[in-house]
Amino acid sequence: MVCAVGWFAKPTHPNTANIVSSKYLREFLDEMQPDQIREHLRKFTRLPHLAGTEQNLKYAEQIMKEWQEFGLDSVEMVPYDVLLSYPNKSQPNYIAIVDQLGDEVFNTSLAEPVPEGYEDISNIVPPYSAFSAQGQPEGDLVYVNYGRTEDFFQLEREMGINVTGKIVIVRYGRIFRGNKVKNAILAGAKGIIMFSDPADYWAAGVQPYPDGWNLPGGGAQRGNVLNLNGAGDPLTPGYPAKEYSYRFSLEDGVGLPKIPVHPIGFHDAVHLLKNMGGQIPPNNWKGGLNISYRIGPGFTDDFKSQKVRMNIHTNNQVTRIYNVIGRIRGALEPDRYVILGGHRDAWVFGGIDPMSGAAVVHETVRSAGRLLSKGWRPRRTIIFASWDAEEFGLLGSTEWAEDNAKLLQERAVAYINADSAIEGMYTLRVDCTPSLHTLVYDLTKQIASPEEGEEGVSLYESWHKRDNWTNDRDAPRISKLGSGSDFEAYFIRLGIAAGRARYTKNKKTERYSSYPVYHSVYETFEIVEKFYDPTFRRLQAVAQVRGGLIFLLADSQLLPLDANQYADSLRKYAQSIMQLAQRHPEEMETYEVSFDSLFSAVENFTVAARDFHVRLTQTNVRVMNDQLMYLERAFIDPLGLPGRPFYRHVIFAPSSHNKYAGESFPGIYDALFDIENSADPEKAWEEVKRQISIAAFTIHAAAMTLIPPA
Amino acid sequence: MVCAVGWFAKPTHPNTANIVSSKYLREFLDEMQPDQIREHLRKFTRLPHLAGTEQNLKYAEQIMKEWQEFGLDSVEMVPYDVLLSYPNKSQPNYIAIVDQLGDEVFNTSLAEPVPEGYEDISNIVPPYSAFSAQGQPEGDLVYVNYGRTEDFFQLEREMGINVTGKIVIVRYGRIFRGNKVKNAILAGAKGIIMFSDPADYWAAGVQPYPDGWNLPGGGAQRGNVLNLNGAGDPLTPGYPAKEYSYRFSLEDGVGLPKIPVHPIGFHDAVHLLKNMGGQIPPNNWKGGLNISYRIGPGFTDDFKSQKVRMNIHTNNQVTRIYNVIGRIRGALEPDRYVILGGHRDAWVFGGIDPMSGAAVVHETVRSAGRLLSKGWRPRRTIIFASWDAEEFGLLGSTEWAEDNAKLLQERAVAYINADSAIEGMYTLRVDCTPSLHTLVYDLTKQIASPEEGEEGVSLYESWHKRDNWTNDRDAPRISKLGSGSDFEAYFIRLGIAAGRARYTKNKKTERYSSYPVYHSVYETFEIVEKFYDPTFRRLQAVAQVRGGLIFLLADSQLLPLDANQYADSLRKYAQSIMQLAQRHPEEMETYEVSFDSLFSAVENFTVAARDFHVRLTQTNVRVMNDQLMYLERAFIDPLGLPGRPFYRHVIFAPSSHNKYAGESFPGIYDALFDIENSADPEKAWEEVKRQISIAAFTIHAAAMTLIPPA
Repeated sequence: MVCAVGWFAKPTHPNTANIVSSKYLREFLDEMQPDQIREHLRKFTRLPHLAGTEQNLKYAEQIMKEWQEFGLDSVEMVPYDVLLSYPNKSQPNYIAIVDQLGDEVFNTSLAEPVPEGYEDISNIVPPYSAFSAQGQPEGDLVYVNYGRTEDFFQLEREMGINVTGKIVIVRYGRIFRGNKVKNAILAGAKGIIMFSDPADYWAAGVQPYPDGWNLPGGGAQRGNVLNLNGAGDPLTPGYPAKEYSYRFSLEDGVGLPKIPVHPIGFHDAVHLLKNMGGQIPPNNWKGGLNISYRIGPGFTDDFKSQKVRMNIHTNNQVTRIYNVIGRIRGALEPDRYVILGGHRDAWVFGGIDPMSGAAVVHETVRSAGRLLSKGWRPRRTIIFASWDAEEFGLLGSTEWAEDNAKLLQERAVAYINADSAIEGMYTLRVDCTPSLHTLVYDLTKQIASPEEGEEGVSLYESWHKRDNWTNDRDAPRISKLGSGSDFEAYFIRLGIAAGRARYTKNKKTERYSSYPVYHSVYETFEIVEKFYDPTFRRLQAVAQVRGGLIFLLADSQLLPLDANQYADSLRKYAQSIMQLAQRHPEEMETYEVSFDSLFSAVENFTVAARDFHVRLTQTNVRVMNDQLMYLERAFIDPLGLPGRPFYRHVIFAPSSHNKYAGESFPGIYDALFDIENSADPEKAWEEVKRQISIAAFTIHAAAMTLIPPA
Repeated sequence: MVCAVGWFAKPTHPNTANIVSSKYLREFLDEMQPDQIREHLRKFTRLPHLAGTEQNLKYAEQIMKEWQEFGLDSVEMVPYDVLLSYPNKSQPNYIAIVDQLGDEVFNTSLAEPVPEGYEDISNIVPPYSAFSAQGQPEGDLVYVNYGRTEDFFQLEREMGINVTGKIVIVRYGRIFRGNKVKNAILAGAKGIIMFSDPADYWAAGVQPYPDGWNLPGGGAQRGNVLNLNGAGDPLTPGYPAKEYSYRFSLEDGVGLPKIPVHPIGFHDAVHLLKNMGGQIPPNNWKGGLNISYRIGPGFTDDFKSQKVRMNIHTNNQVTRIYNVIGRIRGALEPDRYVILGGHRDAWVFGGIDPMSGAAVVHETVRSAGRLLSKGWRPRRTIIFASWDAEEFGLLGSTEWAEDNAKLLQERAVAYINADSAIEGMYTLRVDCTPSLHTLVYDLTKQIASPEEGEEGVSLYESWHKRDNWTNDRDAPRISKLGSGSDFEAYFIRLGIAAGRARYTKNKKTERYSSYPVYHSVYETFEIVEKFYDPTFRRLQAVAQVRGGLIFLLADSQLLPLDANQYADSLRKYAQSIMQLAQRHPEEMETYEVSFDSLFSAVENFTVAARDFHVRLTQTNVRVMNDQLMYLERAFIDPLGLPGRPFYRHVIFAPSSHNKYAGESFPGIYDALFDIENSADPEKAWEEVKRQISIAAFTIHAAAMTLIPPA
């Protein structure tokens, strides 16, 4: 074993000392087995199970039945009626090139080539953009790289191209597709096409599926194109979508795009792009296809009479979805909840997304059930959730959070997310709130590395070796939570300590976005079995991390949450947001912008956190645990972020420009971002100052929650 | 003792059975003495102590010192820097009648005649409307009765009078003055004058002060004219007004009126009103002066060249205020807070408002200190608060609530308000949340009636005899909480169980508004000593009610909160809001408006509450207490009421038309109110349906908080 040096050689954090006190932890971890996970994954990936379909209900019923058999105290099915979106079966979606007569001279494919062994399967939904507007816009194409805010800025400001009335085509990757659509709408486009470029969905030296795990040219990425900002069901923002719930009309729904949107693969994309005219783009706009990636608008002179027509007939439809909620009643603190939740709905088979995660949850439930049968019962209540309709905007998890907001606010200790358990073959990836850092480190030291040739090496060591945090911090890297999965409502809206863990690629060398077959028909059981995790030991390790977190959060007498880590993170975030502001030194002086109050608040918090942990061994455990539990809640501002009422965490929010990424001090960040585009800089800097004040106040208030309560 | 019959003959509510378990309750109640209260009142009413003045700080320091001497565990001074408003000392405010040359032929008085014994006192602020805009508008008067919404409707729709560009004059009473000002602004007036009419500030057969307790003709009612809707300091809505806090500009401040406002007494009012021309008003617009109360606009022909000019020079000013916060640390549950808070700042001497209340709090603290010295310590933490700047918009209490929102949300059990302890000489008045009803009844049975000739009669019996609830319910009347005092942020924003108690007049026979000398210089120590409570036994009884509530909430093992009473109240409120809607039977059918979901939710809540109380004796006290504590919180909707983000209680809010009055189901109520004025009835009814859905959801969610937690 590598000798622990630096940060983690410090004495173990006092309130994780009780980690080893439960004789059951080892048993719980050891019970989770690769073969079992393999079997769960096999079972739940045989058929497509899109949200709202009969098959996804059948899987829900099967999960419910098996969780009952595994021995949970209760399992229930919780339905909601939410807005979903499906292609019209009689009028397929596609994109055409039309000639001057309006005849379609090229059409994009209507479906992906079905992988071997699945030829007889029906109900494979073709690639589409869920919640696209209907319509058949026709016009010239403009290529806008990834469709990011900065790409549109560059297009408009440097290249002088206005996309009003045009159809934009962008490559997938870098940011959440919904943000691309929003940017296109704001820029005035009347349609948007997204394609998977080999530069972003093709790993060097790897064959396309089924011979390897790259995306075939006929594959395309499904996905929703909403801009919900945490609202959940678009028609019932803020409230659960129950039978008696009031529903807004579609016109008043949240986040629905007003233009047609469609995804294609790179075989089709070549046809649309190859004859484009206009400027030659900068090098960083060029993808991996053998074409020039000209910007447009429209085609070269030879083809200038040709236009592009989108044919989109997708329907929005209020549809019943089903969450499965299982519980183990806490022995001593039944009103304290530790939640392990992940989604079940898949675009097609869900071999990776989400069933690699669901299989892991299933195994965790099985292992917990075994322990229950041996007489174990956790101190706190554990809730297991199989969410529905995550792919349509985190709907199942958000509706349940809305339905149970009052209970969760008072009682939830932590939420661990269980989406895809694997997206690469390199090492562990953890995104979590700072107060969970120490627990993650302590736990992963008790789990074995799944990598071949690393017998006797801990997961912690294996992970640390592959992904050290920074030069400043000698520990495995842990990232901020962004969004794009079901933890969002729990963490960003309700302020419940949250985290996620999965196996990932080597970010330094593998530059493609997510994993190549993401949201395609090629996400099968076989891609996991053949390529991602043939021994299923990586999934086992992820199960042990996710399960171990739940176990320790539910069963440790003293909650294993670390306020000192929050203090350290706050300081780092404060430094980096100040550096961002300091790019404008003159304006900061002119408008008297100071970060002093923020640093003073962080200092105050740091002292309070340190004193809190010193006192931990001395007093009333219940009182201290409540202080730890409610610490994350203290960062919630009920007023929400400007224009985003359901994003209420002052320290963390999904980026306004890329939902997948987590922004620290999002209020300040967005205000600073607006500086550059504001017609009234004084007003814009006033908003920066207001946001600094809110952040400083919130951190002060959070510090107050850590001092002795009376 | 009168035999208890009807409702209160039912067996005592199970979780108040432990009321008598504390041997200290009797001692605590008996310790509070009339002479002590008299002395406290005398001491703190010698000098004017307007918020933001040196004298009010001196009283704060004195209270702090004495609370320390009484034996509290800690007492601290907590400052905020809030927007206050004062007359300009060198340019007095007044109203003039001007002739055609612009010369002022009549001016209203610059001050009230000072009462005997106070002639040498400086710093008596003259009557003014705090936060009035500055300006010297000149124009014709229009008389608009009480300035209520219905008065302006009647004026505009039935009398056909438009007040755009006019100065309106309205009588004080019936509704909060800020609502009058808002209505005048919405109607287009350029100034508003408010006067105290004898019909509303004069009790029959009573002499004016100092020979009786009626308002002299030279007296006038001070008061703020904000429309804050719970925002607290106008410049820092949602956040505490600390040194580092961001402040909006005055233009962006919350609730500041844009027109000049000024209050006068009836001696001055006669001069403005007597020559008015225009229509003769309906009888219910006529007050008690010997004039015709013509509507205007302007004066009769004989005086038609005369106009009215307002001269208002009042200044808004960010000013430091001071809350005094004292604590008794809870022995077993230091992180559970029971709060007794009342304001200290007064318009002048504050003989009634607020010092009759502050004297009572002082005596409660003294009594609690005595008990502490005998070895008692409450189970939970008790917090005593002397708020500042209540008169300027509940500022001290709201800023502290904002400062401590996160702690209070997790930890506060109940808030008992302590504004004026007496406003009449008849009987007890209690306004509180339904879950406190049972406790109030049980407690008042243990307190003696203060009335002469009622030796051996309980306060409960005395109160019941004088103010039975209704024909349906044989118990003393308890009313809903509205606003207009410091409980607002705690109850309506944070959802903390709250109540208030004071001695009051006979509402059936005494029709004047509040009490005649309200907010005048005549609110002296002597008016209490000579007229309202010569024996100080009424104030003693109020001290025992307020103190007893705090004692039992802090010291009972099981929290004395009653969910069944909430269920009963919800049913009544649901019935009455449905009846309001049913005034429009055709529209209800057309727009498919149904209250079924609301009644179903109430039924669900009723069952959950009943089952909860049945289980009370059987399980974990901490878990049950948390369920009781958080019940009130469950009615909070973080999204707030439409347009009123700081009014977040779905069941109770101050009326949109009169801040003093409490509205049940305010969201539904306001939506129904809008029906009559909406250009788009379909949209208006959609909003009714949405609000019904929100109410039904919230009650369902509250019911869920009462079921076993796992």
